[in-house]
Amino acid sequence: MQLKDVGEFNFIRQIQDNTIYDSSTVVYGIGDDCAVYSAAPDMDQLISTDTMVEGVHFSFHYMMPYDIGYRLMTANLSDIAAMGGNPKQIVLSVAAPQHIDTEILDEIYRGIKAQCQRYKLNILGGDTVRTEGPMVWTVTIIGEVPKGTAVMRSGAQVGDVVGITNYVGYAATGLGALSYNLAGYDMTKIGHQRPDPQIELGEQLRQLGVHSMNDISDGLGSELNEIASASNVSILVEESAIPLHEETYALAKHLQTKPVDYALYGGEDFQLVFTAPKSLVPKLENLAGITLIGEVVTGPPKVEMVTQDRTIKTIEAKGYNHFHES
Amino acid sequence: MQLKDVGEFNFIRQIQDNTIYDSSTVVYGIGDDCAVYSAAPDMDQLISTDTMVEGVHFSFHYMMPYDIGYRLMTANLSDIAAMGGNPKQIVLSVAAPQHIDTEILDEIYRGIKAQCQRYKLNILGGDTVRTEGPMVWTVTIIGEVPKGTAVMRSGAQVGDVVGITNYVGYAATGLGALSYNLAGYDMTKIGHQRPDPQIELGEQLRQLGVHSMNDISDGLGSELNEIASASNVSILVEESAIPLHEETYALAKHLQTKPVDYALYGGEDFQLVFTAPKSLVPKLENLAGITLIGEVVTGPPKVEMVTQDRTIKTIEAKGYNHFHES
Repeated sequence: MQLKDVGEFNFIRQIQDNTIYDSSTVVYGIGDDCAVYSAAPDMDQLISTDTMVEGVHFSFHYMMPYDIGYRLMTANLSDIAAMGGNPKQIVLSVAAPQHIDTEILDEIYRGIKAQCQRYKLNILGGDTVRTEGPMVWTVTIIGEVPKGTAVMRSGAQVGDVVGITNYVGYAATGLGALSYNLAGYDMTKIGHQRPDPQIELGEQLRQLGVHSMNDISDGLGSELNEIASASNVSILVEESAIPLHEETYALAKHLQTKPVDYALYGGEDFQLVFTAPKSLVPKLENLAGITLIGEVVTGPPKVEMVTQDRTIKTIEAKGYNHFHES
Repeated sequence: MQLKDVGEFNFIRQIQDNTIYDSSTVVYGIGDDCAVYSAAPDMDQLISTDTMVEGVHFSFHYMMPYDIGYRLMTANLSDIAAMGGNPKQIVLSVAAPQHIDTEILDEIYRGIKAQCQRYKLNILGGDTVRTEGPMVWTVTIIGEVPKGTAVMRSGAQVGDVVGITNYVGYAATGLGALSYNLAGYDMTKIGHQRPDPQIELGEQLRQLGVHSMNDISDGLGSELNEIASASNVSILVEESAIPLHEETYALAKHLQTKPVDYALYGGEDFQLVFTAPKSLVPKLENLAGITLIGEVVTGPPKVEMVTQDRTIKTIEAKGYNHFHES
């Protein structure tokens, strides 16, 4: 059945089921001109918005509709994780062509709702509209953090250690394997198709008192440069310390590329990069999934890497730019 | 200059100027993974999202880029007005083709920012992405209302009077005049191109204690039916009481259509329709821009109109449906 057969209003009615996963903050959900919710009085509010366009940010070639919804939510949740926050509410909007099969939309919503259920996020609003072009999905997410404790990019201090969560270059490896139609690479393919945000680690890192944090959506190189620039510091990382998955080494060998480039310039890992005072190192070493990769040093805003062969290389802020692909 | 020449990141940097119009609630604006803001402790939070697609919701034929931004904001502000709320923050996202002239985007932002300035709304986030299709703009708005006082559609009670703000059918008249390329109709053409939300009247009506409220975005017929349905009441309105602008009468005469149909089935007036206890009538009559047009009566959810020739006609919920144009 196509969207034009169901009609916008009827479709919206259908997707309104199962939208509230934590009713304690909801006064009124979907169904009026606005939703009404309460914000905890001792909390700062976090807000971020993210748009994904069919053919630009996702493609039905490599991803199932369910995964598209799932990853859209991960991108938004990851922005909350990067502040050390706790996600609370979303609103979402989709512009879709009239001829689209509503089963595809249903599957995308199923992926969205899976993440909402997991993180007890409420869907407080939606707009479904017609377009003659590719599908465009927009999610706005609201989160909370205790007043005055949001972790910014700008807090890095000289002497801090630099750390990251889990593996980086993971999603880019999976995407590479899919693009070249390679068998195997099962872990990183899933990492590309169904990445998870680091909400729990983000909160733990905030509670420990890290100085700055970013999520890794545009590659580690770009995110480190953002911290260096916002904090007006230099960052020095050690290539050999950057944790890469064995599938990344395997793919790099197969394609004769450099393994570390997947981490530096491959996007959409949705891991966290942070800087923290040296005094936290023992506590950081007790957290599962944390690797220290460098330090914050005096100097103009830049990022340098000590390579495997002990030379120093400047890491450019080459990220994913949807208008100037680099 | 086209968007592809400027680049997404540079363009986002350009539009980040002048985004904070009430700094008292802002901890950190655009520039990190999330913006950080504070919510007043004695307030409920309101949230709504609205998407406009080029060629579906707006067209460069009848509207200047500035007006498109202006009206996008009005649609969002109107949702806050309909709850009796006070608008506080927005985030916005645009998907735009690479070949678009950045002057057009600048003008749309100028229209958006004019409304932000007027209502002291902060722009706390944005996403600018590429699409191969028509432009898609999405705004999410956050507002506040004293705890427990948001005015819902579902509060209408038998015995209430029904009122509306200003004129209805006003924007549809302007659109009609523009479609038929008619000279004159200057007031309603502006009403279509640059409608204003009824924030002040919405707050005043909430403070007076109206029982239910809706904004008129899909025609009075559709909005009255929403109140009747949500409140499980019948609504009876008097055709002769519905305030129409003289240009609506003129256009209806010229095109041999019924004047009241512009009010009932023409969209995007962004006025308010409400029901209120009879005891409020003296106070309502003291408010500029309020007209009483009917009453809430016992019966199944439906809307009826006593016509000029004293017959009773059922008013269907024919609104603007972007998939099933009626």
